[in-house]
Amino acid sequence: MSIASIAEQPQPVTEALAERTAGLTFDDLDPDSLAVAKQCLIDWFAVTLAGAREPLTGMLLAEAAEEGGRERATLIGGGKGTLAQAALINGAASHALDYDDVNQAMGGHPTVPVVPAVLALAEDGGLSGRDLLTAFVAGYETECRVGTLVAPSHYEKGFHATATVGSFGAAAGAARLLGLDTEGTARAMGIAATQAAGLKSQFGTMCKPLHAGKAASNGLLAAKLAARGFTSRPDMLETAQGFAATQSDEFRADRALEAARRGFFVRENLFKYHAACYLTHSTIEAMGRLRQEHGIGPDDVVAATLRVDNRHLNVCNIQEPSTGLEVKFSLRHTAAFGLAGEDTARIENYSDSNATRPDLEDLRRRITVEPSGGPGTLATAVVELTDGRKLEETVDVGVPAEDVADQGNKIDAKYRSLVEPLLGEATGPLLDDLHGLEDLADCRQLTAHLADWRA
Amino acid sequence: MSIASIAEQPQPVTEALAERTAGLTFDDLDPDSLAVAKQCLIDWFAVTLAGAREPLTGMLLAEAAEEGGRERATLIGGGKGTLAQAALINGAASHALDYDDVNQAMGGHPTVPVVPAVLALAEDGGLSGRDLLTAFVAGYETECRVGTLVAPSHYEKGFHATATVGSFGAAAGAARLLGLDTEGTARAMGIAATQAAGLKSQFGTMCKPLHAGKAASNGLLAAKLAARGFTSRPDMLETAQGFAATQSDEFRADRALEAARRGFFVRENLFKYHAACYLTHSTIEAMGRLRQEHGIGPDDVVAATLRVDNRHLNVCNIQEPSTGLEVKFSLRHTAAFGLAGEDTARIENYSDSNATRPDLEDLRRRITVEPSGGPGTLATAVVELTDGRKLEETVDVGVPAEDVADQGNKIDAKYRSLVEPLLGEATGPLLDDLHGLEDLADCRQLTAHLADWRA
Repeated sequence: MSIASIAEQPQPVTEALAERTAGLTFDDLDPDSLAVAKQCLIDWFAVTLAGAREPLTGMLLAEAAEEGGRERATLIGGGKGTLAQAALINGAASHALDYDDVNQAMGGHPTVPVVPAVLALAEDGGLSGRDLLTAFVAGYETECRVGTLVAPSHYEKGFHATATVGSFGAAAGAARLLGLDTEGTARAMGIAATQAAGLKSQFGTMCKPLHAGKAASNGLLAAKLAARGFTSRPDMLETAQGFAATQSDEFRADRALEAARRGFFVRENLFKYHAACYLTHSTIEAMGRLRQEHGIGPDDVVAATLRVDNRHLNVCNIQEPSTGLEVKFSLRHTAAFGLAGEDTARIENYSDSNATRPDLEDLRRRITVEPSGGPGTLATAVVELTDGRKLEETVDVGVPAEDVADQGNKIDAKYRSLVEPLLGEATGPLLDDLHGLEDLADCRQLTAHLADWRA
Repeated sequence: MSIASIAEQPQPVTEALAERTAGLTFDDLDPDSLAVAKQCLIDWFAVTLAGAREPLTGMLLAEAAEEGGRERATLIGGGKGTLAQAALINGAASHALDYDDVNQAMGGHPTVPVVPAVLALAEDGGLSGRDLLTAFVAGYETECRVGTLVAPSHYEKGFHATATVGSFGAAAGAARLLGLDTEGTARAMGIAATQAAGLKSQFGTMCKPLHAGKAASNGLLAAKLAARGFTSRPDMLETAQGFAATQSDEFRADRALEAARRGFFVRENLFKYHAACYLTHSTIEAMGRLRQEHGIGPDDVVAATLRVDNRHLNVCNIQEPSTGLEVKFSLRHTAAFGLAGEDTARIENYSDSNATRPDLEDLRRRITVEPSGGPGTLATAVVELTDGRKLEETVDVGVPAEDVADQGNKIDAKYRSLVEPLLGEATGPLLDDLHGLEDLADCRQLTAHLADWRA
């Protein structure tokens, strides 16, 4: 669809999405979507606590300390600060390790732009867990629908959807929590649209995580200004030279307005369970399943073959990694981790000493990587055993989990792996509160667990 | 030039501009550029004081008051706040009336993104007037060169250059004041590039002035983070999927790197002297010159004809304005103002009562507007007098002034017209300090004049 045809036949997408946001209530959430939404929150706390120790987070905390401000919202690992500081810093921290979740409809990382904005508001206002969950799902829905509106060319042109599309998620979530009506929410989305920025060419720099923080803080500002009566066009997604027209070749109102396949888009959330390159995850999972289902270990394996999409080979096929960082981009070594039952969720395991541990070196040298035709994130592992058997397992981590309860167990394990070394005794109580989030009367109870922790 | 050819043959424009910024010293400024730079500052204080009373500024001040923070920099008309708040709020206030200056190379408003960022830093650091002027010119140069790099398609596509290109000006100016070297300045420009946003489709809403504030605050943040060691690509203007590739069809490195025609780009600054639509300005000036040079007034005029670019007729040709706002978009009424010697710089004169003042109504009905072939901002006024003479005057306010001293007198008059009703006795002392800015030891002396004033 050409830009001209957008201008000639605009569909009121902004208003429709604003109406959905303003009208969403907790009772609208089906059990699976609610469960996954809570998993997103649990996962977010885990990756954010871990990301709070990264140097980029420290720089943002130092900047906030220099600026000062009312201590109204928790800066994870850094005391308290203003709402804007919490949105910016927690957003950047949560994306610092690139270990946070993904949604294919959005074309980016859905949780990191939204949670930092809505959590800051919920904490400051002493709002309930239901309020927080409803606002989070409203923001998540909005950004997925905006993502489908402008996909795939928006991302292909060079825009980082987590930053740009994520701004709409943050604005919508914050607007929901502030109780804005449809008209106010549409203005909030317009104020977000005109601030939305973030370029993929910054991948590999500290600006990538900064994008998530900016999306959260820009979206929060948009909603707060809208609540004050700040004016904006109410149709910034579809208007001539609006968001879609300036940064996309598509204007897929049909997709943006259709119902999600199963309840809400949050149901389709994809989690990361391993602190390595995403393209190693299907391999790690396949090896883990073989280990678990057949009771095999390194000593049982004569040889193994990994079949992965050709495109993986340029990204994560370091044959003989010698550092922890290289391990993250080594299919052979991460496969060895999986077979050996190492905790691949734990960041510290990607260490230089583990890269050169003799038993793992020995195991990885029995593994061969072969290109396949794909698709995408799918991987097949074939293992030849000492007893002559040949076992095969295929996994595609790009497919949303069928079993939500099982997914919850995996998220809990990831959470414990990341959080326990940092938060110690408070690890369990925070997790318990997140499990029971729909019954939590005051979100300050969540952040209270982090009050004394410093990254 | 296609996007592909940018990627294949990138020229190191970012580094070259960063090097110019880092290397600029006060002694590099020629007398005319220095004089115009000071005029920009004087003009900026005038329009910002006036803009501080606008509702949008009040909303941003309320937001800042709610957030709190260290009181380190003056929020014009609103006490003191953090550096980020000063950049955001003063930037928005200065563009609130759309009465601030213009530069055709930049393709936008050059002063409003840069001054709020560098003034906040200069005030906080107690830096000198020379430091402030050098940083301002460094930022101004940078944004004009970035503007030429991506013109005209960047603006034509829908991006508001004051917002996007202005972010680079703010970042460069702040980087200069923070003493960053070439490498650090290039990173600051990269962090600015990935935050740069602002859509023209928001013209007519409060988001347009917000863009200037966001450019200032995003640019300031970029420079401050770069000073802390935050990482960024060093080539974000020219890299594949960088700023130019994602938001422009052009990559005019030749233009971005060429010397400005007369010294610095700031020498080409265009000021607004009338608080009406920019397309009425040549008309007002022509009528004013006829009045002044020939000693004529309303009673001497039988009839008058205005010849203006066809495109003006859709914008500012309200025949019978009945409100102050409509007067701003009425060529006939503003021409009557000019002939009658009304102070067209003064915002209060665009009042409902002046719209229906009998003598002005009578005069405007003797005036006819005729379309011409342009170009652009040029206007010709022909006046038939009671004594039978016919006088003609042509003005194009889009041409930079030859006479810098005369321009300075006009800026002073505009400043007094806007500031005197607000600041009273402090009007003259602030102007004196701005006139002698290159000898001012501490920029806190400037803002001290505003300490007690509330918008």
